[in-house]
Amino acid sequence: MTLGTFYGLGVGPGDPGLVTVKAAAVLARTHHVFVPKARIAAESVALDIARQYLGADAEVRELVFPMTEDRAELAKSWTASAGAIARVLESGADACFLTLGDPLVYSTYVYLLRALTQQLPEVCSVTVPGVTAFCAGAALANFPLGERKELLTIIPTADDLQPVCDALQRGGTVVLMKIGKRLQEILALLQEAGLIDRAVFVSHAGQEGQRVELDLRRLYAEAPEAGYLSVILVHAGKS
Amino acid sequence: MTLGTFYGLGVGPGDPGLVTVKAAAVLARTHHVFVPKARIAAESVALDIARQYLGADAEVRELVFPMTEDRAELAKSWTASAGAIARVLESGADACFLTLGDPLVYSTYVYLLRALTQQLPEVCSVTVPGVTAFCAGAALANFPLGERKELLTIIPTADDLQPVCDALQRGGTVVLMKIGKRLQEILALLQEAGLIDRAVFVSHAGQEGQRVELDLRRLYAEAPEAGYLSVILVHAGKS
Repeated sequence: MTLGTFYGLGVGPGDPGLVTVKAAAVLARTHHVFVPKARIAAESVALDIARQYLGADAEVRELVFPMTEDRAELAKSWTASAGAIARVLESGADACFLTLGDPLVYSTYVYLLRALTQQLPEVCSVTVPGVTAFCAGAALANFPLGERKELLTIIPTADDLQPVCDALQRGGTVVLMKIGKRLQEILALLQEAGLIDRAVFVSHAGQEGQRVELDLRRLYAEAPEAGYLSVILVHAGKS
Repeated sequence: MTLGTFYGLGVGPGDPGLVTVKAAAVLARTHHVFVPKARIAAESVALDIARQYLGADAEVRELVFPMTEDRAELAKSWTASAGAIARVLESGADACFLTLGDPLVYSTYVYLLRALTQQLPEVCSVTVPGVTAFCAGAALANFPLGERKELLTIIPTADDLQPVCDALQRGGTVVLMKIGKRLQEILALLQEAGLIDRAVFVSHAGQEGQRVELDLRRLYAEAPEAGYLSVILVHAGKS
């Protein structure tokens, strides 16, 4: 029995129009579609984006990835999910796994792929890149990502905001991702650094509830609770 | 007369399958298609990618952007190009401009858009983001771009390689773009930094002559002349 092919599909950040022609074609012909099980509402977005491209007989299965930093528990979940995919591939059928944005930019797909390759060393996998949330946010705000020879730094926000300060200090263009509940802290930081007028905020790009805010002083005054599915783009100046 | 709409289209890095559904739809219905005039063979790639999506009556026009750092000369060329596009929009027709990869990632599109907005302040422009060359390269090599909370730094290579050294020193994932004739110097630098085994090289992703090289020692020994349309992705470690 020939193994099926495994496709890791980036479906872009929200607008179904930003799915690539290639990903749309794979979705249309692949019966077995795997998606990460949504832990928060924002996480069901990948399936929402892909829905219009699915074949009539597509079977969507959710894979559970626990929200934990416990490496052993995480490894167990990768192994279990990879096993579910491996069983489909061993039957000779293809399978695909959806990721929001691009499959390899701050994504969990790479762990799944590693676990799958361990279980099925001869697996044929095809990763289809996608449009990232920061490129979509930049397009909505017409905000250049990298000019001339300047740095472009992408930072997922963590408890410690020091790396964000350091990146802003270095200059170039800085993209802040995974902002979540740290939105207000980050806005305060931009204010202090004198960069609040050189930044834009984009959330839910291409989705319901999309917001493109070019005035971050207004956003700061408004003090919104959270910044899920949002990015802040900053021109930190000459690097 | 209502002004036409201006579309800035990212057509992705090379594989026509990586054009988005939205960009393909705009290409199919837009008569006036503008592309930067190729100064080297590699630059005709955007049109090659888009060709299969063009409408039967599409009219492709090349815009000349001189290869200079002279700001005044550059500004003159943006103004002239924006003027050509403005005349189409003023006739009520839509126009689109193609860019390789994403329109706002180290692209000249932003200058063109600024010049156009100066000439036609009421212009309606839509930027359609695209898949970047580094995401496509990562997909071909299954190379993660950013893990957990690590930095992702994107650097266009310049005469001075110090910013590259600094970024490698900081850690995280580093993407080297616009490598050109500096390929051998960069490989030497990776060798010295002890990172040559943690890097991959991808050139002409999705195009004829595509090369995915996971063994950079081999590439170094081979000493190829140039790295046009190529990226090097490096895991520089914990940041």
